[in-house]
Amino acid sequence: MRRSAAQTRLHILDAAYALFWRQGFLRVSMDEIATRAGITKRALYQHFTSKDALMAATLACSSELALKHLKQFHLPVTTGHELIESYFTQLRDWANKPKYSGGGFTRAAIELADLRGHPARAIARKHKSAVEKWLADELAAAGIPAADHRAQEVMLLTEGAMALMLIHGDPGWANSAARAAKRLLQTSPTFGPRRQLSAR
Amino acid sequence: MRRSAAQTRLHILDAAYALFWRQGFLRVSMDEIATRAGITKRALYQHFTSKDALMAATLACSSELALKHLKQFHLPVTTGHELIESYFTQLRDWANKPKYSGGGFTRAAIELADLRGHPARAIARKHKSAVEKWLADELAAAGIPAADHRAQEVMLLTEGAMALMLIHGDPGWANSAARAAKRLLQTSPTFGPRRQLSAR
Repeated sequence: MRRSAAQTRLHILDAAYALFWRQGFLRVSMDEIATRAGITKRALYQHFTSKDALMAATLACSSELALKHLKQFHLPVTTGHELIESYFTQLRDWANKPKYSGGGFTRAAIELADLRGHPARAIARKHKSAVEKWLADELAAAGIPAADHRAQEVMLLTEGAMALMLIHGDPGWANSAARAAKRLLQTSPTFGPRRQLSAR
Repeated sequence: MRRSAAQTRLHILDAAYALFWRQGFLRVSMDEIATRAGITKRALYQHFTSKDALMAATLACSSELALKHLKQFHLPVTTGHELIESYFTQLRDWANKPKYSGGGFTRAAIELADLRGHPARAIARKHKSAVEKWLADELAAAGIPAADHRAQEVMLLTEGAMALMLIHGDPGWANSAARAAKRLLQTSPTFGPRRQLSAR
């Protein structure tokens, strides 16, 4: 039975995701992706005109799934502390897998650091903003004041924990991040607008 | 006048650093490094037997310089707040350059996420531990209690700010990190050992 074009597309995205996730975006070739997807390179290019396009599509698909997952994670959380605890526990468990390679969106931004206009960069940026927004909404729902400031801080601690868990191979950094986030929920900022931008 | 071997070595490290910094470790070839250093590929391999060895040497050299810079940064700081302010101001100014590409050590860890035994990974780990130790010593000297816990939190906020400044192209994240760090200095942890490691 022949697969539909849509099925093939999903199949390619799945193969690309697995390879990109493990080896990063730069080291994986279209040849390897075609091989893993069990199709010819010609067929692969019928679906995605370039590796850049495939990277962007893979990240967009991954963002959609991750945000869906986060939204399902709207569990019977009653306090900000419980939310923070569950959130960082999930982060730690995710990073505690033997093949943990850091966050895919952050990785895309770093691997493409000199290519600001790359479509994958825009998707990474958009994804991080969506997570920040989700955090702000959840923290506000839990009655935390200045929830958008607190969400920024949780984002900082999340990115920090993702990097340090990878660098040191130690998922305990997620626990340190959770404890810091809880203390930050208890304190109020003493000054300053949302973010003071330096003169640019 | 012929350059000494030591001079050539430094010249190569300088060329490699500039290329790695801008394009990451994976995309730069030994050919490009030889061209930039103005030597033959054969001469390059006489100094560094592989690109992996050159990466490790470049990071080791960079770590030495960065730590020296940090130690010079032992300015007439009197309070923890002043230390945090100066530290994150430097971070923000560094990231505010047009070609900011994130942190080199973190980038090495991410680009080589699946190669845990790579010598560059060990250097990245060692470097981050040295920065954490420096922070703990400075915070302790400023009279901050539980300085080693606070140093861990500043590390989390540092890594988070470096990633988010790159992702969003917005150095204002360093200001958010500085404000969070100052609030964390004011609060005491309520529980927990240094880091609670998950069962592994």
